[in-house]
Amino acid sequence: MDTEAKKKALRSLTYGLYVLGSALGEEMAAGTVNWVSQASFSPPLIMVAVKADSHIHSLIERSLGFGLSVLSSEQKEIASAFFRATQRDADKINGYSFERGPQTGAPLLLATPYWLEAHVLDSVRRGDHTIFVAEIVQAGVRQEKAKPLVMWDTGWFYGG
Amino acid sequence: MDTEAKKKALRSLTYGLYVLGSALGEEMAAGTVNWVSQASFSPPLIMVAVKADSHIHSLIERSLGFGLSVLSSEQKEIASAFFRATQRDADKINGYSFERGPQTGAPLLLATPYWLEAHVLDSVRRGDHTIFVAEIVQAGVRQEKAKPLVMWDTGWFYGG
Repeated sequence: MDTEAKKKALRSLTYGLYVLGSALGEEMAAGTVNWVSQASFSPPLIMVAVKADSHIHSLIERSLGFGLSVLSSEQKEIASAFFRATQRDADKINGYSFERGPQTGAPLLLATPYWLEAHVLDSVRRGDHTIFVAEIVQAGVRQEKAKPLVMWDTGWFYGG
Repeated sequence: MDTEAKKKALRSLTYGLYVLGSALGEEMAAGTVNWVSQASFSPPLIMVAVKADSHIHSLIERSLGFGLSVLSSEQKEIASAFFRATQRDADKINGYSFERGPQTGAPLLLATPYWLEAHVLDSVRRGDHTIFVAEIVQAGVRQEKAKPLVMWDTGWFYGG
């Protein structure tokens, strides 16, 4: 295989940026992810690939639930804040206010325009990330018509 | 669940646009897809959710291979052409020149800047789409530094 072409082709895929959160009781983790896509209309399914050696991976495996906060085009700095290890401080996580999802208890950021919660139905463990396939169980809109953050516009890559 | 919020939250996810192709001998199908993401660096995996009642779904199930042509920001009309049923005419598919992928025989468009081929390792069948998890086996670049097509810029949605 032409590994340089493989890297360039994979880096040509388009992504948004999201803060993925999960919780089990008082244990909580959240991190920025981009390998996310819807996977079915009925039932409404989503697929997300999560780094296998991360805290949030371990939490999703155990809780079988997660929340996804969709970042707006103005919220690149929130994406940055969730590249770091999770730090919880009373009602803030990595410096941002959150609430717990009604269905999963997962942290959902209050600042982001859209959120959803999902229950994991399947996981595929093959590589350095695990694919979690999950059914949407709740969702919310905090700000109508917000423009989501497109990874191309950040200058960052996670892929290749 | 708040179904209106679920629809809006799912429609806030960001996608690119791609022509997915598959072949088995002389049988060939290709269609525009957007539910695509990388899923691992090592091995390099990709996940794609494909409509369960489509011809290309049936072909990928049987061939266990596919090719993905990444559309550039100038190629919205190619995405349109592959919403239709596949029509092959000598060396053209839905009006566009193609070649067969060296590893899978899948049709790859000559006009698009990046392509990759993958072998299916797993599939998840839960909803109205099947998730194919596949290992990248070959890739190519036809045009360096092309800007990929972002679905937001087309005004189209496939999600919700």
